[in-house]
Amino acid sequence: KINPDRLWDSLMEMAQIGPGVAGGNNRLTLTDEDAEGRALFQRWCEAAGCTMGLDQMGNMFAQREGTDPEALPVYVGSHLDTQPTGGKYDGVLGVLGGLEILRTLNDLGVKTKHPIVVTNFTNEEGTRFAPAMLSSGVFAGVHTQDWAYAKTDAAGKTFGDELSRIGWRGEEEVGARKMHAFFELHIEQGPILEAEAKDIGVVTHGQGLSWTQVTITGKDAHTGSTPMPMRRNAGLGMARILDKVDEIAWSHKPHAVGAAGHIDVYPNSRNVIPGKVVFTVDFRSPELSVIEDMEARLRVEGQRIADDMGLEIAFEKVGGFDPVAFDEGCVRAVRDAAERLGYSHMDLISGAGHDACWINRVAPTAMVMCPCVDGLSHNEAEEITKDWAMAGADVLLHAVVETAEI
Amino acid sequence: KINPDRLWDSLMEMAQIGPGVAGGNNRLTLTDEDAEGRALFQRWCEAAGCTMGLDQMGNMFAQREGTDPEALPVYVGSHLDTQPTGGKYDGVLGVLGGLEILRTLNDLGVKTKHPIVVTNFTNEEGTRFAPAMLSSGVFAGVHTQDWAYAKTDAAGKTFGDELSRIGWRGEEEVGARKMHAFFELHIEQGPILEAEAKDIGVVTHGQGLSWTQVTITGKDAHTGSTPMPMRRNAGLGMARILDKVDEIAWSHKPHAVGAAGHIDVYPNSRNVIPGKVVFTVDFRSPELSVIEDMEARLRVEGQRIADDMGLEIAFEKVGGFDPVAFDEGCVRAVRDAAERLGYSHMDLISGAGHDACWINRVAPTAMVMCPCVDGLSHNEAEEITKDWAMAGADVLLHAVVETAEI
Ligand SMILES: NC(=O)NCCC(=O)O
Ligand SMILES: NC(=O)NCCC(=O)O
Repeated sequence: KINPDRLWDSLMEMAQIGPGVAGGNNRLTLTDEDAEGRALFQRWCEAAGCTMGLDQMGNMFAQREGTDPEALPVYVGSHLDTQPTGGKYDGVLGVLGGLEILRTLNDLGVKTKHPIVVTNFTNEEGTRFAPAMLSSGVFAGVHTQDWAYAKTDAAGKTFGDELSRIGWRGEEEVGARKMHAFFELHIEQGPILEAEAKDIGVVTHGQGLSWTQVTITGKDAHTGSTPMPMRRNAGLGMARILDKVDEIAWSHKPHAVGAAGHIDVYPNSRNVIPGKVVFTVDFRSPELSVIEDMEARLRVEGQRIADDMGLEIAFEKVGGFDPVAFDEGCVRAVRDAAERLGYSHMDLISGAGHDACWINRVAPTAMVMCPCVDGLSHNEAEEITKDWAMAGADVLLHAVVETAEI
Repeated sequence: KINPDRLWDSLMEMAQIGPGVAGGNNRLTLTDEDAEGRALFQRWCEAAGCTMGLDQMGNMFAQREGTDPEALPVYVGSHLDTQPTGGKYDGVLGVLGGLEILRTLNDLGVKTKHPIVVTNFTNEEGTRFAPAMLSSGVFAGVHTQDWAYAKTDAAGKTFGDELSRIGWRGEEEVGARKMHAFFELHIEQGPILEAEAKDIGVVTHGQGLSWTQVTITGKDAHTGSTPMPMRRNAGLGMARILDKVDEIAWSHKPHAVGAAGHIDVYPNSRNVIPGKVVFTVDFRSPELSVIEDMEARLRVEGQRIADDMGLEIAFEKVGGFDPVAFDEGCVRAVRDAAERLGYSHMDLISGAGHDACWINRVAPTAMVMCPCVDGLSHNEAEEITKDWAMAGADVLLHAVVETAEI
């Protein structure tokens, strides 16, 4: 069993880097705070006797050697970057939970046949640079590195330049590592486990995602002296499309979801009818056909609304991944570990995207989930209990040790 | 008659300060560019033999002496600040048209009984610091100076501090000056004069304005793992209210207008359901009762939408003015001047707010309008012809000289 106090203390120490304004964190990818968090993680890993690898996407790999020099490592991990108003556990629990299992194995003097590697993937959140899970995506061969390097933030800075600036651009070729298996511990970020009073979610599938960036162009004009019939109000077009996005997601009840989290209005002046609005629609479902249907309806309905209002509209897919089925063997290892340890558990479909969704393409993969209070995440008030963290890390430990073999 | 080439050259020279990105201007109030524009205006005024007054709100007063030391000055003017993506004429034509009439009187060696003062009012646009027409409002006793000084921009900087920073905070008590009359030349910013093929609008009234800032609070949450029924999506609430704003404005056809130009979404991340949206609704009509009706319906309908969606909503009136009837004598002076000079003209209600709307409370006031291409304003593509500018300045000259007496 892992040491819950040590795990908790590490979570709280990491949370001091890039504090938010309401008890959570603002440690956006490739900021100075991200660099500070990485340095702390590296110090901890070195103190635990690991060697640190760093690839050209800034992905970090802390390795504890195994007894068989031929055996491929078992990987665990997640991400240390956060939302701009994010919680202390989203991603961080998976990285520090991974570190905790190494510390526990050190305490017990247990050696595994396969090495164990704790990973921190760069830019999982996708807020500063879309899409999300960018660097695990490059690792899995889904995106090219050049494409990722060219991604820009709202200020026009590129991913590649910012990675160099913070000093975490490594030499290692991305994706060159081969994995025996990959396990990611993560908070659920949804309400199901808490409602069902289960300690552990055994993640069998991940739902798919589609991000469509919509640009509506009307005409900047004076809000006072421009008669209603002459207006081409891009803000009103956006409003009507958002209502339609909601209707489309509900039409696939119970499983589909849809919303726009990102909306930029230009020139954003009280007395100027918006001439341009850029926003991103996020649609998700466990069924690929449902995602495709929602995406298609957004384009058809959006075009119709724009045409009716004399607006121009453009759609660009800026992120997404298909629904995922995790590896049966790894899923079984997680379920067996929960069972053996006596934690209540249930099978679960992940509502959010995770690095594990991409890594699943290049290695047998599964996820362990633990509940979070009120299912709340991507909010500074995100909270978990020490017992939930402990149960998650215990199950991770046992699934990993079984896979890495003693 | 004024010198149209000289007027045009001055307009074009001023437009080089704070250029926009698409041929217009970005000379927001109390920026370094605003300071530079003021300095150029001051040099021109001094070259024309005027003395410059500066009050504690940064309002500038360039005086050409009259022959009667007892006679109150006749004021003309408007504003030199622009929208973030504004045109070259909105406001600027009224200030530099005022300067042009002084230059013309100098050329002709004409002396007036009353002094003539050309004014540049600070922060007419209201983009950086709401409300619009802030400093003419303080001049007219509508707002207190302390209230105005405390207004903050999006970065949290105060009006008072920024006025000092750019070096244009004067000593003179605001509103201490008494005016014999005030005339403002301005582009129409709407389509009527061009459609009716008239050179001159004789502005008899100004429509009223109400700015209501709406704050909707929901709950930041993950766009993927938060089930639809658990969402409190402040962005969707905003969308539904914007559609209602449009419906309310149309219900008062033909004269009312309504839209939101300013919309800020928090935390504005693609995978976070918006927990907060702040936006400003702009309603206008020449009828006070219509404005009051629209404002009241916004509050009722907005509250209903928020309640239905489990959102919190707050309304704050952040700007506004009642419909204005300009001074009959001053209006007649404008109409007579247009008639005498042989320019085609029509009576007009101003769709936009102007410094003249506030000054009308403390002095007999009227406005001269000239057409603008496609009625377009608050857009970098705002355009007028040299002939339209000339007609407007000629009418201004004659109305002012008649009022200031030779
Ligand atoms: N787990 C998580 O919040 N990942 C970000 C990508 C997503 O939006 O699902
Ligand atoms: N003329 C003008 O655009 N003034 C700004 C105030 C308003 O929005 O009407």
